[in-house]
Amino acid sequence: MTANDAASYVAERRRLIDQALEGAVTVDGSRLRDAMRYSLLGGGKRIRPIMLLASGEAVGADCAPLLPFACGIEMIHTYSLLHDDLPAMDDDELRRGRPTSHVRYGEALAILAGDALLTDAFTLMTAAAQTYPDPVAAIRAVHEIALAAGAAGMVAGQAEDIAAEGGDADLATVERIHRRKTGALLCAAVRGGAILGGAEEDALTRLTLYGERLGLAFQVVDDVLDATADSGVTGKVGGRDRALGKRTYVELLGVAGARARAVALRDEAVAALDVLGTAAAPLRSLADLVVGRAAAP
Amino acid sequence: MTANDAASYVAERRRLIDQALEGAVTVDGSRLRDAMRYSLLGGGKRIRPIMLLASGEAVGADCAPLLPFACGIEMIHTYSLLHDDLPAMDDDELRRGRPTSHVRYGEALAILAGDALLTDAFTLMTAAAQTYPDPVAAIRAVHEIALAAGAAGMVAGQAEDIAAEGGDADLATVERIHRRKTGALLCAAVRGGAILGGAEEDALTRLTLYGERLGLAFQVVDDVLDATADSGVTGKVGGRDRALGKRTYVELLGVAGARARAVALRDEAVAALDVLGTAAAPLRSLADLVVGRAAAP
Repeated sequence: MTANDAASYVAERRRLIDQALEGAVTVDGSRLRDAMRYSLLGGGKRIRPIMLLASGEAVGADCAPLLPFACGIEMIHTYSLLHDDLPAMDDDELRRGRPTSHVRYGEALAILAGDALLTDAFTLMTAAAQTYPDPVAAIRAVHEIALAAGAAGMVAGQAEDIAAEGGDADLATVERIHRRKTGALLCAAVRGGAILGGAEEDALTRLTLYGERLGLAFQVVDDVLDATADSGVTGKVGGRDRALGKRTYVELLGVAGARARAVALRDEAVAALDVLGTAAAPLRSLADLVVGRAAAP
Repeated sequence: MTANDAASYVAERRRLIDQALEGAVTVDGSRLRDAMRYSLLGGGKRIRPIMLLASGEAVGADCAPLLPFACGIEMIHTYSLLHDDLPAMDDDELRRGRPTSHVRYGEALAILAGDALLTDAFTLMTAAAQTYPDPVAAIRAVHEIALAAGAAGMVAGQAEDIAAEGGDADLATVERIHRRKTGALLCAAVRGGAILGGAEEDALTRLTLYGERLGLAFQVVDDVLDATADSGVTGKVGGRDRALGKRTYVELLGVAGARARAVALRDEAVAALDVLGTAAAPLRSLADLVVGRAAAP
């Protein structure tokens, strides 16, 4: 697979995911569904669901049966952004270049839309698991995703992130926070795809390493973008981390140091894919995509 | 099974559930887990999880393998109370006789504790589904619970309830709101247990009818208690519905009319159990328990 092929793989998978997400939350005339769709369908790079597909396909799964699980992980990611933006949390007013949910729909509906996206991610995945070729593998994948999203993963990371605001967290603390806040779900996307694809133990171990390293790289890149890019590029209000008194990789390593760290993590992630050969080309391409966002000085 | 036996069945199952819930969210020194445990282990009648057990056992399931699913439904119920109490929602300060989560832990952690309880309910249930005697039945049960909790059920009911505040909703509207807000999850507890127990189609239909009727009765009783009991009995601030401008059964039917409606719904629920014979005695006892809360004038 050439670099060109990999790029078109990513674009095509993104299109399939956008199409599936459109059908995952149907319109029923209620403001609740409107609010869910507003956040879910308002752009987004779809990195996590593409990762799930690419990981599953790398070990031989068909794409179509993986799609509901890919949508589920994007719904969980979207709910987490929606709740993180709330006034009681990061109090953000701009996301993906548009007003955040609570600005547009009010705080009550923003909380409920997040709750519903999270719950219905499981509605969707458990519906698909019942008819998946290997139902027990499908439950195992859903379990990994839930585990990564809850009090052992993403929610714990967010709670710790808020608690650390204004403090003087060191690099190890910042890394632990981000391993849970961002890394866990990204890694679960990769592992979930691999489990759905029936990966052997060795392939699963390699893909887990890839997911862990890339999950960390993702957050380093986010910190670089928050510090350096304007909101026209990120679709968010820039400099929020500093305004909230959050310790970031940029603060700890400098912009150049953070960029170098992201590149090193990407290289470790890609090296872990060696044994998988050309089937893993899309995963390599995704690694470049994640880190490339901040690679240009 | 005598009335006495049924009462001790309920007490014994409540004890098993409390014990299982204690292990479902372990302590790790974090405030997040503390907040989760504060809401989850702070009393509660455990009606939904006992319903799930009683329904599964009525069609022949063993109790022990049902427990993680019973805990899951109680965790989902608890998260919904926690989020409903938030300042942006019902803004309640008292629940089960104690300060609500956001009063005790702050708004950010209350939101996150709710998110984590909801997510980890699925972590727990999908872990148990993998080793359940019939894994596909287990996924189906988890699916029913998720469906009832999300944008087709409980969350939609809560959104509609908030939207209807201060309006002049009629009985049909109030009933539609409560069918989703309270009824759906209660009915899913009954159906989930039945599916886990491998119920035949006819038994499932009967148990569904029981769950629907009792789910409605439950909310009628709640309205009666909100209007008539003091906070020493309910553990909540009384008269909140009226203060929030919510239309209730009591307002629409009067206290005596609402009580009569609850009793009629209970009778319909219990009648649906006829074909199940003595195995359904605990479910009959639960119906009395639900309605008995408000039956005495």
